[in-house]
Amino acid sequence: MVDRKKSPKKTRNLEESRKEILEAAFWEIFTRSFQGVSVDDIVGKTSLTKGAFYHQFPTKLDLGYALVDEVIKPMTYSRWIDPLKEYENPIEGILAQLKNLIGKAKPSELRYGCPLNNLVQEMAPVDKGFKERLENALNYWIDGMEKELKRAKEGGYLKKDVNTRQAAHFVVMAHEGFYGMLKALDDPKAFDALYDSLKRYFATIRS
Amino acid sequence: MVDRKKSPKKTRNLEESRKEILEAAFWEIFTRSFQGVSVDDIVGKTSLTKGAFYHQFPTKLDLGYALVDEVIKPMTYSRWIDPLKEYENPIEGILAQLKNLIGKAKPSELRYGCPLNNLVQEMAPVDKGFKERLENALNYWIDGMEKELKRAKEGGYLKKDVNTRQAAHFVVMAHEGFYGMLKALDDPKAFDALYDSLKRYFATIRS
Repeated sequence: MVDRKKSPKKTRNLEESRKEILEAAFWEIFTRSFQGVSVDDIVGKTSLTKGAFYHQFPTKLDLGYALVDEVIKPMTYSRWIDPLKEYENPIEGILAQLKNLIGKAKPSELRYGCPLNNLVQEMAPVDKGFKERLENALNYWIDGMEKELKRAKEGGYLKKDVNTRQAAHFVVMAHEGFYGMLKALDDPKAFDALYDSLKRYFATIRS
Repeated sequence: MVDRKKSPKKTRNLEESRKEILEAAFWEIFTRSFQGVSVDDIVGKTSLTKGAFYHQFPTKLDLGYALVDEVIKPMTYSRWIDPLKEYENPIEGILAQLKNLIGKAKPSELRYGCPLNNLVQEMAPVDKGFKERLENALNYWIDGMEKELKRAKEGGYLKKDVNTRQAAHFVVMAHEGFYGMLKALDDPKAFDALYDSLKRYFATIRS
C-alpha cells in the first residue's frame, strides 16, 4: 500500500462517514436481521453515496464484522458491565440493571431482543468470520462479568468457594436467555418469573 | 368450496408430499435461517414439483407457520418433555436430558442451536403470524415443564412453596440460553459451567 499522508480533514471525514454508516447499519440490522438487510437499505439511511460505503466496507460482510467489533462489543460492555462499577456490591448492580434495562423496557424495545444475541443466533452458524468476532464479543462480556464477580467476592458478598468464571457464564447466559424468551412471550409476568428465579440462584452463591 | 370426496390414495399422497416438504424445509431452515432459504431451495431438496409445493403452501409464510405448528412445536415437546415421564423424579430427568441432548452433542450439532429458539430470534420481531405461533409453541413447552414440576412437587421432590409456573419459565429459559451461548462459544467448559450453575438453582427449590 502507498504510504500517503492523509489530511486531518479527510481523516476526520472518513471517521465520520464510517460512524454514520455503522449507526445506520446497527439499527437496520438490529430490527431486521443481517441477511434481511441490503447494502442499498443501509446506504439509503445515510447521507452518503454507495461509493463512500464501499470505500469503507468493500463487502457487506466487512460491514458486519466492523459492526460486531466496533459497535456491538463495546456497547454490550458499556450497557451491562460499566454500570456495575457504581455498586459497592456488584450483585445488587446486576439485578438492578436487569430490572432497569429488561424489566422496565417497553414491549416495543424487547421485541427486537439483544443485538449481540440476535447476530449470534443468525450468523454464527453461517459464517466463520462472524462466529469468531461474536465469540470474542461474548467472551469480552463474560470476562467483564467475571471481574465484577471477583470484586464481589473480595468485598465479601460472595461465598469464598464460588467459581466466578462459572458464575459469569451463567449470569451472561441468563441475560441472553431473558432476552430470547421475552422476544416471543408477550407476558408481563415472564420477566418477574425469570428475575425471581435468578435471585434464587444468586442466593446460593451470596455469602 | 366444492364438497368433493378425495380418494384415499390421493389423500395419502397429499399427506406424504406435505410431510416430505416439511422435512426438507425443517433442515434447510434450521441450518440456514428462514429468510436465507428460498422456496426453490426447499423444492430442490424434495422429489416434488413447485406446483405441488404451492398446492400445499400458497406462500412461503404458510410453510413457515406449518413448520412451527406441525413440526417444531411437537418436536420440542417430544424431545424435552416426553422423556421426563420416564423419571420418578422429573428434576433428575431435566438434568439428564440437558446432559444427553446438549452436553454430549457434537459441536457440529450445537452450532445450529435450537430450531424453536432460532425462529423466535429471527422471525418473532418481523412477522406477527410467526410470533403468535412461536409464542404458542414456547408456552406449550412451558406448560409441559410446569406439569412435570407439579408432579415433582407431588412426589415430594420440590419444596411445597415453589411456584412451579415461575420455575418452568426459568428452566425453559435456561434451555434456550444454553443453546444460544453454545452457538457462539466453542468452549467445552461452557456447558459444564452452565450445568453446574443450573444445578445450584435446582438445589434452592428441591426439598
